[in-house]
Amino acid sequence: MKHIVITAGGTVENIDEVRKITNTSTGRLASLICKEAINHLGKEHYTIHYIKSVNAVSPEPVGDKVKIYQVSDTKSVIEAIDEVYSQNAIDYFVHAMAISDFTTAYTMPIDILAKEIAENLAHLEGKSMEEKIVEVLSFPKNTLPKGQKISSKQDIILGLKRTPKVIHHIKEKDPNTFLVGFKLLSGVTEDKLLKVATKLANDNHCDLVLANDMQRITDKKHEAILVEDGCIIDRYNTKDEIAKGIVNRMLGENK
Amino acid sequence: MKHIVITAGGTVENIDEVRKITNTSTGRLASLICKEAINHLGKEHYTIHYIKSVNAVSPEPVGDKVKIYQVSDTKSVIEAIDEVYSQNAIDYFVHAMAISDFTTAYTMPIDILAKEIAENLAHLEGKSMEEKIVEVLSFPKNTLPKGQKISSKQDIILGLKRTPKVIHHIKEKDPNTFLVGFKLLSGVTEDKLLKVATKLANDNHCDLVLANDMQRITDKKHEAILVEDGCIIDRYNTKDEIAKGIVNRMLGENK
Repeated sequence: MKHIVITAGGTVENIDEVRKITNTSTGRLASLICKEAINHLGKEHYTIHYIKSVNAVSPEPVGDKVKIYQVSDTKSVIEAIDEVYSQNAIDYFVHAMAISDFTTAYTMPIDILAKEIAENLAHLEGKSMEEKIVEVLSFPKNTLPKGQKISSKQDIILGLKRTPKVIHHIKEKDPNTFLVGFKLLSGVTEDKLLKVATKLANDNHCDLVLANDMQRITDKKHEAILVEDGCIIDRYNTKDEIAKGIVNRMLGENK
Repeated sequence: MKHIVITAGGTVENIDEVRKITNTSTGRLASLICKEAINHLGKEHYTIHYIKSVNAVSPEPVGDKVKIYQVSDTKSVIEAIDEVYSQNAIDYFVHAMAISDFTTAYTMPIDILAKEIAENLAHLEGKSMEEKIVEVLSFPKNTLPKGQKISSKQDIILGLKRTPKVIHHIKEKDPNTFLVGFKLLSGVTEDKLLKVATKLANDNHCDLVLANDMQRITDKKHEAILVEDGCIIDRYNTKDEIAKGIVNRMLGENK
């Protein structure tokens, strides 16, 4: 019995009750990878654990070998991965999801934040002004209540803190999982793309990294390179080619 | 020949090349209003100018009497409305779109912003500390380049400035346009909802306002009140009822 995890789409981080931070990911590539994996595995015994964001397109066909986990923010992705690993030995992990690097730390009207900074500078307590200001900008006290819809009467400051790097924990959970990472840059040379993809692989023990450049993706075309051990081992021009390429490299060209 | 404008969905304000601020609006209610209007108008001569955000569901059926204008951020909504008004006398305007109250003013790493604030406080020029801090928080100089993908190496401050109120300009363009406004609040009493809807109507010369509360909207149910001249003239429990109600009140129960 093979267990495969595919993550799909882009996370959604709430700013308040109605506003949210999203990204451009649609989940289309992940859905094609799922389809290719199903074709490839045929009648084998397997389960695909498909972790998808609310906005991501659904994979087709689904059937009873694909188990869907709907997630929203980065925290919920981590919980879904924990759940999957707690119940299964995962053989393959295709981490195609665009995880938000940031989540909302706080929201605050500009004048309230300015007042709090000014007040804090009255007592430097041996610190520099800059240090005291960083303190307030990192952990202000007079923030707007979390979740509640922000009034549009004033300009607002939104503090964004970094989210944990999801990909970093996959091999910690199981070093035997075959891990495919993804790297999206924008307007860089292929050399740069290769370098950054290799760093991603090294930092997170990825077996493969699919690297692509936003400026070489259109509705019809999707240029990408597949990176293994610091080398480009494949090149693609469409989402279909990428999906086939990843699945063949990962599951073997046994078909 | 009747001209009707319907706006649908939620605007998308870019933070950078991949990240964006969106809201929970799906455009489903607007698509139902469009369908009802088509049913209602039957064989009459009319055009529906349907201004929809990229994420909004498309109205059905479309046919050649519905002209679609795809928009993204608040600025593009205003441009689309200008275009429609420059070419047609608009009889009815159903402004169902959730326009972002805020757009990205700037993005900046916390430490760079703290440094700029500290430096600015060295020369108060007769102003209070608070005033000087508000100045920097409103218009900082050392911001990250616009558009470019933000590095995730540091925590980030996002400055949000208010967008122009789209609804305010509709009656200025043509005082004869019949204007339907929408107000969404969260967790308030009906009295409060009526009061806020009436203020929206008065400030913007709306002929009708559909007012609803997020906490009384689920997948199956959508409670709402229709407000005219400070009074509740109708109550609804579903999106279908709302769409029918607005169209009948607006176009007359001639069918």
